[in-house]
Amino acid sequence: MNALVERIRREGRNLGRGILKVDGFINHQLDPVLTQAMGAEFARRFAALGVTGITKVITAEVSGIAPALATGMALNAPVVYARKTRPITMHTGVYHAQAPSHTKGGIVDLIVSPEYLLPSDRVLLIDDFLASGQTIAALASLIQQSGATLCGIGCLIEKRFEGGRQTLAHLQAPIVSLAIIEQMDETGIVVCAPADEGQTPDNNQV
Amino acid sequence: MNALVERIRREGRNLGRGILKVDGFINHQLDPVLTQAMGAEFARRFAALGVTGITKVITAEVSGIAPALATGMALNAPVVYARKTRPITMHTGVYHAQAPSHTKGGIVDLIVSPEYLLPSDRVLLIDDFLASGQTIAALASLIQQSGATLCGIGCLIEKRFEGGRQTLAHLQAPIVSLAIIEQMDETGIVVCAPADEGQTPDNNQV
Repeated sequence: MNALVERIRREGRNLGRGILKVDGFINHQLDPVLTQAMGAEFARRFAALGVTGITKVITAEVSGIAPALATGMALNAPVVYARKTRPITMHTGVYHAQAPSHTKGGIVDLIVSPEYLLPSDRVLLIDDFLASGQTIAALASLIQQSGATLCGIGCLIEKRFEGGRQTLAHLQAPIVSLAIIEQMDETGIVVCAPADEGQTPDNNQV
Repeated sequence: MNALVERIRREGRNLGRGILKVDGFINHQLDPVLTQAMGAEFARRFAALGVTGITKVITAEVSGIAPALATGMALNAPVVYARKTRPITMHTGVYHAQAPSHTKGGIVDLIVSPEYLLPSDRVLLIDDFLASGQTIAALASLIQQSGATLCGIGCLIEKRFEGGRQTLAHLQAPIVSLAIIEQMDETGIVVCAPADEGQTPDNNQV
């Protein structure tokens, strides 16, 4: 998606150790026009892949909420954001998974109430980054616990050199990323729009 | 806002001790149509109050993000969500305030990077709940630290019996809520659309 790629080229900062700072439009400040366009783009690309009948979009708090909501708006589907701590409004008896935190260190819990993820749901999983794939794998585990069907995985930015796409290949779900970071080093950030987007993982490995 | 009031009547649950569960459409699952409509409603009401030229919408993670984003979409203004922990992508030298957590207990930090809140900004502050007003007061403190101008405060649900509106009166900013909980007890939840919305705090006390 060219608008996102251009924005990363202009404003993205390589903080070292594989950390890409995109706080100006994804992780702290949101550009509403770009966010809405990214949601529409996910809807368009998954439709082009034949992924239809989505009844729910799932993501993880915090930074997944904006792109997931924009996607839910485009698909007219409810959005569920997995909580990292169980608020007192949530029953016990929840779906629960864990993943390592990329930017904060430690292990993060991901919790979804069974009230909002049903065996009949056809789910699109949306997140801001696909890096090692472990957060998305944890969200996929929540979907599996519920008996719902994972229909597709969408991420705004894929750090391809971290191999998350391979980690997630066993899920047999199409993976769509809107921008791919091929490389980050002292010479800069190499980012491109995916040429082969919309293929299933088996056909879409580097 | 009738759509929100009806939804609270239908799905809201009184968990006791002043806790209102609205996880099905605000705090865990989001209704994209309702969320978008609530953002448009904030834009309409603040415009009717003469609040114009908004350059930024500010909120706190997690549950403020969706209504703030919808408002930012309606106003075409960037949205900044205060972080509760400082991610490694954020510089030191941040704006910082603290507030007690209503649903989790303890004290919550709220952090905004000076990169995204400028003295020239005209800011709308959006959150899901107005209860005691302490989270919103902390967000207002971040705006004051930056030198930006607080132009208005919008919340989806005001628990009027907690007195937050009075706590925030000194900010001299118009407060718009889309639904007001007048009372919550064992007999049920008394919720209404504000009849006097859009007045300044001085003219709008119960």
